[in-house]
Amino acid sequence: MQKCKIGIIGFGTVGKGIYRILNSQSSIHPILKEIEIVGIAVKNINKKRDIELENNLLTNNPFKLIDDPNIDVIVEVMGGIDIAKDIILKSLKAGKSVVTANKAVIARFGTEIYTTATKYGVYVLTEAAVCGGIPIIEPLKRSLRSNQINKMVGIINGTTNFILTKMTKEKADYKETLKLAQKLGFAEFDPTADVEGHDAADKISILTELAFGGKINRDSISTEGINQINIKDIEYANKLGFEIKLLAFSERSDINSNDSLSLNIWVGPSLIPKSHPLAAVEGVNNAILIEANPLGEIMLYGPGAGSGPTASSVVSDILNLHASLLKNSSSIDPLLSFNFWKDCHVIDFNQISKKNYLRIICLDTPGVIGKIGDLFGNNDVSIESIVQLDASENKAEIVVITHEVTNGKFEKSKKEISVLSEVELIASQLSCI
Amino acid sequence: MQKCKIGIIGFGTVGKGIYRILNSQSSIHPILKEIEIVGIAVKNINKKRDIELENNLLTNNPFKLIDDPNIDVIVEVMGGIDIAKDIILKSLKAGKSVVTANKAVIARFGTEIYTTATKYGVYVLTEAAVCGGIPIIEPLKRSLRSNQINKMVGIINGTTNFILTKMTKEKADYKETLKLAQKLGFAEFDPTADVEGHDAADKISILTELAFGGKINRDSISTEGINQINIKDIEYANKLGFEIKLLAFSERSDINSNDSLSLNIWVGPSLIPKSHPLAAVEGVNNAILIEANPLGEIMLYGPGAGSGPTASSVVSDILNLHASLLKNSSSIDPLLSFNFWKDCHVIDFNQISKKNYLRIICLDTPGVIGKIGDLFGNNDVSIESIVQLDASENKAEIVVITHEVTNGKFEKSKKEISVLSEVELIASQLSCI
Repeated sequence: MQKCKIGIIGFGTVGKGIYRILNSQSSIHPILKEIEIVGIAVKNINKKRDIELENNLLTNNPFKLIDDPNIDVIVEVMGGIDIAKDIILKSLKAGKSVVTANKAVIARFGTEIYTTATKYGVYVLTEAAVCGGIPIIEPLKRSLRSNQINKMVGIINGTTNFILTKMTKEKADYKETLKLAQKLGFAEFDPTADVEGHDAADKISILTELAFGGKINRDSISTEGINQINIKDIEYANKLGFEIKLLAFSERSDINSNDSLSLNIWVGPSLIPKSHPLAAVEGVNNAILIEANPLGEIMLYGPGAGSGPTASSVVSDILNLHASLLKNSSSIDPLLSFNFWKDCHVIDFNQISKKNYLRIICLDTPGVIGKIGDLFGNNDVSIESIVQLDASENKAEIVVITHEVTNGKFEKSKKEISVLSEVELIASQLSCI
Repeated sequence: MQKCKIGIIGFGTVGKGIYRILNSQSSIHPILKEIEIVGIAVKNINKKRDIELENNLLTNNPFKLIDDPNIDVIVEVMGGIDIAKDIILKSLKAGKSVVTANKAVIARFGTEIYTTATKYGVYVLTEAAVCGGIPIIEPLKRSLRSNQINKMVGIINGTTNFILTKMTKEKADYKETLKLAQKLGFAEFDPTADVEGHDAADKISILTELAFGGKINRDSISTEGINQINIKDIEYANKLGFEIKLLAFSERSDINSNDSLSLNIWVGPSLIPKSHPLAAVEGVNNAILIEANPLGEIMLYGPGAGSGPTASSVVSDILNLHASLLKNSSSIDPLLSFNFWKDCHVIDFNQISKKNYLRIICLDTPGVIGKIGDLFGNNDVSIESIVQLDASENKAEIVVITHEVTNGKFEKSKKEISVLSEVELIASQLSCI
């Protein structure tokens, strides 16, 4: 049987997970035995590792693997941006298909990478880049291709979901919970990309391109993280029947714009009704709801990170390449490969339409709820509920939940409310679905 | 661009759904335009239809399509067993790949069908046969192939889930709810296959073969339906923190049997804790939990039936075939095709190990709970809880929930309990997870 020969670049958590699967003695499909690791590129060959590797497998020069005519597939699991991008592009240009778990590179340089793959007649597969072990890229490219995708909304960052779950269950403070997450290995030493929502924005950008077919300007995605979340918001949300989750959202907008499809995309901490299927997604798990026509609504749920789950996705991509390469044909599988087929653009922040939650600290005087209500009304913002939740020392906390409204109208109302004489502070603002 | 020419056999709900997708003007992937319907075989050409078809598209002879050298793929959506099986096998032997939604045929004649497809170098794809629109077959064959699957448990019959949801929410009677389901089109005129669990058994048989790699004797699957479910059981289950769902279950058993993998498979109405992800699956929706190594646990959720969802799965199979055929190679894609790779067998009913729920009607005398507890203990059956839930006119209702135990030991205890002088009736028995 023809083997599929791979070179792995990077041997951290994911690299080791891949090695373990391919050397597993468990009861797996025999096709896994057809994958052969020809070389592994690491920074330091002499580093002590918990997996003992034959020395002739290791190199500290990733380009040696890219140039090796024996190797069919390059597996990039080193992380980082610039060097990883260089390695991916050089591999594709050398006629090798690439499997990568690198969401940051794909979200930023997807266009160049997909185009290069097509130009050189090879593939770049990215199942491990989004939602760890959950099959989502493959289903989008194959099983759902018969549909028009209308909306995707998901919990696609495990670190922040771990923190929010912990804060909710134990009424714990944000900073302390972040420290705990770091200690347990669920958050990185520099947690910025996760807690500020950039990681989720990378992922929703990749998913949006695959689902809707057009190039997305990654920087145009309105992104907020969980670093401003106050335990009070979680308590109030729970009291009103909601959970707070960091959501990534992407939807066809009905804003007309000639031939380019308008997309309503954002990432932000959000209230979701407790009865909503995403509300039950806890800890480092991820889930994504996809609404499509004629399919209806499906949800894919599972572990969003970790060595085993991520390696599982990488190896399934390698198997897909192997199955395709076995066919020994010069033509490209149009479902396994990816090419843009549509013009898309992200609508402006002010045009984004969604429900909002606002917590206002104000003087506990009669009529303040009426004034706030009037201001929203004057700006054409319809309100779902307005509740006074706490009053002490002459202060009151008022929580407003709006119906769906454009950011433009909402921000204008907010500005006007903030200068009311009774209003002391707009304490927090969240999205709702 | 090379077109993929298909012949559709059967033009009911699913057939019409396929036609609608392929003639849709919505914003779908351009590859869909490469699928061309060459012919549709129906019973009665002159029947009035809500979709107007050109007359030269219709035939009442399915074998005309199978023999047509212009056609690449036969889509069997006529239903039934014997003729459908004949059509599938003849198509494969004529060198045509087949897409089918027919779970009954695949569950019964999978071995012959898969083997014939391999022999003739073509494919038989079955995404629509299990869980309607949920991508499950494709993920099992591709995305999860890097894993050892350990367990699958799911709600995979929409009709019974609709009935149980309705009974739970409205405290409605089984027979009346079934009538309503029939009126609404969620249950067939003859509901036997659904309500007695045979449809779910067909589906778990198909999934088990794909996941574990071995032939399954369909008739050896222990199957119970919901036709004996009493509203009292639903009330008691709810009170104790459970929902009742019709589950299909398939798991590696640790029973040693040389080289053949032992599988613990059953279908039956079951108590599941309200916090379990499957507990929230309502109405005609389906969901399946898959536990795999190293992936962990994932859940796939979505519409389990209906014209749009099922047609979505059929068309995605057609697209997969088209993408593969485009490669114009005589070799077969080992992930798209399916061949058994392992010896498996279903363990005996008495060896099946699971938790159980038992409702016993007995005299309201002191000591009866002790006696029942002792009998279970003597048979090595460990009890999770035993509760007296209702007492009137000298009668008491006792509910027992056991820990995991083999059917053999459980049935022996049950028999001994049923002849206790205090016991009037063993009113019902359900599984638990």
